[in-house]
Amino acid sequence: MSHNKGRLFVISGPSGTGKGTICAEILKDINNEFSVSMTTRAPREGEVHGREYYFVSHEEFVLNIEKGNFLEYATVFDNYYGTPKDMVIKRLEKGRNVILDIDVQGGLQVKSAMPEAVLIFILPPSLAELRRRLEGRGTETSDVVEKRLAKAVNEIRFIGEYDYYVVNDDLGAAVDLVKSIMASEASRVPEKVLPIIRKYEKEQKGE
Amino acid sequence: MSHNKGRLFVISGPSGTGKGTICAEILKDINNEFSVSMTTRAPREGEVHGREYYFVSHEEFVLNIEKGNFLEYATVFDNYYGTPKDMVIKRLEKGRNVILDIDVQGGLQVKSAMPEAVLIFILPPSLAELRRRLEGRGTETSDVVEKRLAKAVNEIRFIGEYDYYVVNDDLGAAVDLVKSIMASEASRVPEKVLPIIRKYEKEQKGE
Repeated sequence: MSHNKGRLFVISGPSGTGKGTICAEILKDINNEFSVSMTTRAPREGEVHGREYYFVSHEEFVLNIEKGNFLEYATVFDNYYGTPKDMVIKRLEKGRNVILDIDVQGGLQVKSAMPEAVLIFILPPSLAELRRRLEGRGTETSDVVEKRLAKAVNEIRFIGEYDYYVVNDDLGAAVDLVKSIMASEASRVPEKVLPIIRKYEKEQKGE
Repeated sequence: MSHNKGRLFVISGPSGTGKGTICAEILKDINNEFSVSMTTRAPREGEVHGREYYFVSHEEFVLNIEKGNFLEYATVFDNYYGTPKDMVIKRLEKGRNVILDIDVQGGLQVKSAMPEAVLIFILPPSLAELRRRLEGRGTETSDVVEKRLAKAVNEIRFIGEYDYYVVNDDLGAAVDLVKSIMASEASRVPEKVLPIIRKYEKEQKGE
């Protein structure tokens, strides 16, 4: 129809909710792609500029902050990581949906910078189930598991800022629901409807 | 999750767009039901009060108008027809989605009376295709077809008041898209999120 622009989807949820697996499924559709972050950390063996990250100098990163070119950014171990707005917009204009798999703090920053972003929160069916999944990994000490559960509840407290929530009880159903949300958002009547109306009016007039 | 209330979906679109067929498919899901209208016209053979219509006296209908109990109403051949708000709310509270297959004028009345209603507009792929479908019925004179096409364009001019639009090119795809919109709307984060947060907090506290 008249607007073939893609949309920005932020997918957040506590560690262990299966968010990563859901994103991987969503990305199998060629119209959906992950956003590529900008970072000041050095590239590792095999990493390609523009694929894993945009690798930039500290100076260039700060310049982007000053230009207001980040949908969100944060520092991790003295390195900056951020989502460059201009690159996201370029992809949206090509009709691609951009998927951002980030934590709640990042999601809220994105919503402020780009209110039309669609925020989806992935919830565990219960804390007990989340605990079971985290313990099932077998890599975390019980202390770490407790910390993650506490962090999960803290993140869930921000759910009111999100647009949609998906309880990941059954992975296939959760993926289908995220896909439905994406299809539904693409079917929203746009703010500017004149191009739609004109299409039919033109036909009527035999133009 | 915390809110098992159903939603009211208004489905509108020009005659010939396949709106009725789409509604019939949607109603195969037992969670979805048509709203039952109230009318002052006499019941016909086999019609049951509360199934086809709520059959009421002129006096009772007017009383409902005065109480503001119609999501929309209109007169057709000296008889009143309307969608009673209280009956719709009763169904929504039982967790059923209520489907209203009405014209654009009715849809706009519903949106004013119940802003949380979700309005879906079914569009034909083109006016040429709509003409083909209307002519294909073989029951309409070319004069009637022209009138319907003009009416279609007039209705499409109100698309900006609707929430979603679905182009019915392929029936199966259109039905899937309406289902996606319904699933997506059911996954919207509600205004009151405390019940969701409390569920996880309670578990954390071991309540």
